[in-house]
Amino acid sequence: MTLPRHVRLVEVGPRDGLQNEKRPLGLADKVRLVDDLSAAGLEYIEAGSFVSPKWVPQMADSAEVFAGIRRKPGVVYAALTPNLKGFEAALEAGVEEVAVFAAASESFSQKNIDCSIAESLARFVPVLDAARAHGVRVRGYVSCVLGCPYEGEVAPRQVADVARELFAMGCHEISLGDTIGTGTAGKARALFEVVARYIPRERLAGHFHDTYGQALANVYASLLEGIAVFDAAVAGLGGCPYARGASGNLASEDLLYLLNGLGIHTGIDLDRLIAAGERICAVLGRDNGSRVARARRGAS
Amino acid sequence: MTLPRHVRLVEVGPRDGLQNEKRPLGLADKVRLVDDLSAAGLEYIEAGSFVSPKWVPQMADSAEVFAGIRRKPGVVYAALTPNLKGFEAALEAGVEEVAVFAAASESFSQKNIDCSIAESLARFVPVLDAARAHGVRVRGYVSCVLGCPYEGEVAPRQVADVARELFAMGCHEISLGDTIGTGTAGKARALFEVVARYIPRERLAGHFHDTYGQALANVYASLLEGIAVFDAAVAGLGGCPYARGASGNLASEDLLYLLNGLGIHTGIDLDRLIAAGERICAVLGRDNGSRVARARRGAS
Repeated sequence: MTLPRHVRLVEVGPRDGLQNEKRPLGLADKVRLVDDLSAAGLEYIEAGSFVSPKWVPQMADSAEVFAGIRRKPGVVYAALTPNLKGFEAALEAGVEEVAVFAAASESFSQKNIDCSIAESLARFVPVLDAARAHGVRVRGYVSCVLGCPYEGEVAPRQVADVARELFAMGCHEISLGDTIGTGTAGKARALFEVVARYIPRERLAGHFHDTYGQALANVYASLLEGIAVFDAAVAGLGGCPYARGASGNLASEDLLYLLNGLGIHTGIDLDRLIAAGERICAVLGRDNGSRVARARRGAS
Repeated sequence: MTLPRHVRLVEVGPRDGLQNEKRPLGLADKVRLVDDLSAAGLEYIEAGSFVSPKWVPQMADSAEVFAGIRRKPGVVYAALTPNLKGFEAALEAGVEEVAVFAAASESFSQKNIDCSIAESLARFVPVLDAARAHGVRVRGYVSCVLGCPYEGEVAPRQVADVARELFAMGCHEISLGDTIGTGTAGKARALFEVVARYIPRERLAGHFHDTYGQALANVYASLLEGIAVFDAAVAGLGGCPYARGASGNLASEDLLYLLNGLGIHTGIDLDRLIAAGERICAVLGRDNGSRVARARRGAS
């Protein structure tokens, strides 16, 4: 029941967040966002995605983003690379760490990326091979770990199977994502308890969505299970594609507020993080999804 | 670490919620709200407040509310009664259980109710005496238990002192309120751990505000401490007077979603609760503060 002393925040706002925002964002504002985040003390920022612009037009300028940012020493700037072509483009853009993703639900895999879970994993083999050859670390995402929009409940064992395969293929860290946000604290604990039988806890991360308001309770539950890496998006960037108008990514500010309250070290400056979120929300013309940011604004 | 099997929700929307809404609500809509909530399965509803209408004009028609509701057997309809005059009016209106409130912070007590903590407690003595004489149970609220807008941090020992006095005076249940929502999970646990040295856990309740997004994590932390009564307001009614535009009360729907996920029994129907919240938000012309309600709406 002792909590981790240090937690690493994986900031996914510039990628997972912006990719799900309705309004496109210009290159300069993307670069500014990433630089604001590194200045706030984030040590791991997912800054782009190297996929076909036909699939994800919002990420078409990821190479330019990587060329434009001021690289702060000690900060990892990562990108999503679903295939070898994407990996090679990322490598050319100077990306230091990449990520691949698979679903824990067969239906979600079929509907989201048009292939089975096994096929998606097979596609990553060349990416992992190339990454190994170039000394690039690969992070693995598993989606729908606490529920699927098509199948409903997802068994922890099913998640563990996919996570194990990604880990065996060479992913150094596996992020378990509650894509639709239906997970609750007891199920989050049970999931990590099962997956940690096969993968060391220090190689696991929690990626919770706040669609049903459960994200921070799930984080606290995961901390109690010894999980010490969490994904979040500044200002809660990115909505929920499965529930229009609802929240998606957990806001990094709200996560940091919890961790600060628990006395857990992150190296992140809350005020600067809030300022980064307020700025990007003003540019996007959207509400700030962080309750901490809204409370601070109202109290000032 | 075993969680309670049954949790009682104390619905404070019709009182604590509406009292902090900008738009006044007509009598018929108040009555309808209370009846919707009892129909949804809530077993404890704080339906009004017997205070001077000069202080709280929104609650001036509480006697009419109590006269208008359909009393469902097994449901407790309670009211706030800060003094003997209020208690007598509540008694006349057929209120079955009343509540008194004190602050854990001296500055808050002075600024909020214009007297010291000790003076406020002394004022409740006649209320408690009269309640005992009439066989009416009294619930005690303690505010600012995890932070004060004027003093900042509040020591658990300070909270325990006020809670003990209320308990010793005859309050059957003490609700500990994080009035400004700055509390985090570790501090919530530590607080209950300290207060439970003096008051049995089954006589304690948690009242968390979601201003900084921490309410559900605090609930989960409290459940781990054996707390089994939680206050919440349907649709998150009531803003935060200390941060304009920010969230106040935890939404009952979001709390129920967590409890359902944990397999904890409450007797409440989530769909009917959501419908009650959607209706009152439409009448008030306000956004629904429940993330669960918003997610369900977007997913339909």
